[in-house]
Amino acid sequence: MTINLAALEEITVTSPSKIVMLVIDGLGGLPHKKTGKTELETAFTPHLDELASSAACGLIDPISPGITPGSGPAHLALFGYDPLEFSIGRGVLEALGIGFQLSQNDIAARGNFCTVDEAGIITDRRAGRITTEKCVELCSLLSQIKLPSVELFVQPVREHRFALVLRGKELSPDLSDTDPQKTGLLPYKVFPQSPESTSTANLVNTFVEEARKILMNHYPANMILLRGFSRLPDIPPMTKIYKLKPAAIAKYPMYKGLAKLVGMEVHSANGGFEEALGIMAGCYNQHDFFYIHVKEADSAGEDGDFERKVKVIEQVDKILPELLALKPDVLVITGDHSTPALLKGHSWHPVPILISSPWCRRKGVNGFSETLCASGELGRLSALDVMPLAMAHALKLNKFGA
Amino acid sequence: MTINLAALEEITVTSPSKIVMLVIDGLGGLPHKKTGKTELETAFTPHLDELASSAACGLIDPISPGITPGSGPAHLALFGYDPLEFSIGRGVLEALGIGFQLSQNDIAARGNFCTVDEAGIITDRRAGRITTEKCVELCSLLSQIKLPSVELFVQPVREHRFALVLRGKELSPDLSDTDPQKTGLLPYKVFPQSPESTSTANLVNTFVEEARKILMNHYPANMILLRGFSRLPDIPPMTKIYKLKPAAIAKYPMYKGLAKLVGMEVHSANGGFEEALGIMAGCYNQHDFFYIHVKEADSAGEDGDFERKVKVIEQVDKILPELLALKPDVLVITGDHSTPALLKGHSWHPVPILISSPWCRRKGVNGFSETLCASGELGRLSALDVMPLAMAHALKLNKFGA
Repeated sequence: MTINLAALEEITVTSPSKIVMLVIDGLGGLPHKKTGKTELETAFTPHLDELASSAACGLIDPISPGITPGSGPAHLALFGYDPLEFSIGRGVLEALGIGFQLSQNDIAARGNFCTVDEAGIITDRRAGRITTEKCVELCSLLSQIKLPSVELFVQPVREHRFALVLRGKELSPDLSDTDPQKTGLLPYKVFPQSPESTSTANLVNTFVEEARKILMNHYPANMILLRGFSRLPDIPPMTKIYKLKPAAIAKYPMYKGLAKLVGMEVHSANGGFEEALGIMAGCYNQHDFFYIHVKEADSAGEDGDFERKVKVIEQVDKILPELLALKPDVLVITGDHSTPALLKGHSWHPVPILISSPWCRRKGVNGFSETLCASGELGRLSALDVMPLAMAHALKLNKFGA
Repeated sequence: MTINLAALEEITVTSPSKIVMLVIDGLGGLPHKKTGKTELETAFTPHLDELASSAACGLIDPISPGITPGSGPAHLALFGYDPLEFSIGRGVLEALGIGFQLSQNDIAARGNFCTVDEAGIITDRRAGRITTEKCVELCSLLSQIKLPSVELFVQPVREHRFALVLRGKELSPDLSDTDPQKTGLLPYKVFPQSPESTSTANLVNTFVEEARKILMNHYPANMILLRGFSRLPDIPPMTKIYKLKPAAIAKYPMYKGLAKLVGMEVHSANGGFEEALGIMAGCYNQHDFFYIHVKEADSAGEDGDFERKVKVIEQVDKILPELLALKPDVLVITGDHSTPALLKGHSWHPVPILISSPWCRRKGVNGFSETLCASGELGRLSALDVMPLAMAHALKLNKFGA
């Protein structure tokens, strides 16, 4: 059970104390078959281990036990927003991922260029993974399609992927996918899933017909598939719920988009963790909450590269003293989810967390690892509890009830 | 996730077994800077430690991780009532706290005597903390105000504080505060927060105007501020939900009021824990559930008096054998929340709990402390789980579902 946002908002207060939330993407792992140690347990991490020895440690479930999260819901949960309540559609995530500035009225879909035969039947859902250059060229062609009363954007992502955004009044994202998710079928028409979405369904079907005509001679990318129609969720910002002045320091567009979505001021980092810390130091007086995102551990896990993930974690540990030198009142170090190299993808395993603050019970554990955190004083928590705990340790919460 | 009251009520059964819930108010603490030990860890507690060695131990969150509870919601949760569902307003708590017998139709507010200047602007929200004697005298004057169709009670609390209770038909507590919570402003008028509360708002505004006239020449207590208008929550009693015959043995009015609110028979203890045990022994055959409240640990914590809190815990431990001699089937020992002397107030830190019964797995921990309970078999629980666990260990719950 986690307190709801409305009740939380009643007790949050502004104070000078500063919270830093360092998210090592995909931090949790699984043991290497030879050594029996996870990536985090294999890494040489003297600074993390020392922090853990006097911090409150535990394991968090991004969504709930057994559920493997995408990056969107996993991050929302860390920021205190129940991902079962605030859903981020695939289309919105794709648009955020390329840094597209979605507005509240936009609806977005994820698009694939695909190959169809003469009968229109799908033979390759990814059009042979065309080059990103080709994708850019074709998106530019599709951008010329005109729809009545609607502005449209066809934005390349990479290879065969693009984002479609429709901007206009009274659009509705309650639409079925055109992508049947397998070959040998005709692409579906879009069907309205609610009475309000009939006209939007017609618009999208018109767009797809026009796209088919334009792409006719661009084999293998001679058709498109659309899925995940969605709109920005209406999320009360962190500035309102927590009364914070939050900053995000991230490199990849999707995380910057997510941070913006919850009301953070986004600072772009183009280099690694060290540069991110430099950016944080530069704006340390202007904010009281900092979210720092380290992507590379997840990428290594996704690639199944155990050793590279170990090195990313070691690199974070090495530079950690520069963060500690800023003396944040509360330092949270965790991941958004686990990405075991063994599974080459996100997983459901709970993620180690440490919360360091003068107001911890300071019993700590003998190192920062999946195994040791399991016996930490925090126990096993929902990721939704992380923000209330961080706020509490920063003395930014009033008493609930008299 | 905790079972809801309706589903729980379906499976509760009456049996001769007896449950004792000993609540050491503010039990949880933070480590002393010199010794690294909390109050409970510092206290010499051979009996508690022996109990813990064969009990089911863990840590409970009164509301949810990170949330510091007031005494009202914390106790409701221990008795199995979700404090986010059953809220106890400040006015009701103030009335309960002085032992005022609220009825379901009453609305109550917390009142302050305050000081205003000639223009009516608040210069001191607490009227220089007038003496309790003066408060009694002024309450008596305000009690003479007459309102149409409404009985009113102005009850002194202490110093500048009083409780206002209106009794009548069709009153509504959906009213805004008159207390702007800072000086330099005029007191607010009461505004109705729902259509039903318009007439009550008018009544209260009339009361405030009359009060101002009466207090005009009683500087510094020449005006009043009201806040936290509320009504008794409609709580299904423990007699119904748990089919228990519950008794409360407590000294302080607020806890007696809370116990009465959930349907306990209240036995007043005027002395300490030893007297409370005597009272319990005296009515041991008439009840099957006993809530015993020990306030002094919280008071010491609130005063920042680490040593006194240690002594209170040691005193409880010393007398514990008298409780054990009664051989309750289930003994729950915990706190309603943490009150670390270091923080001089309630805190969010989870509270140690032990449940002793022949039906525990009896793996126990090596002593009763925050640290050791963190690795106990109960793990980290919501306080809402305590009553179902106590009932289960008393074999007072049928199977859920077939």
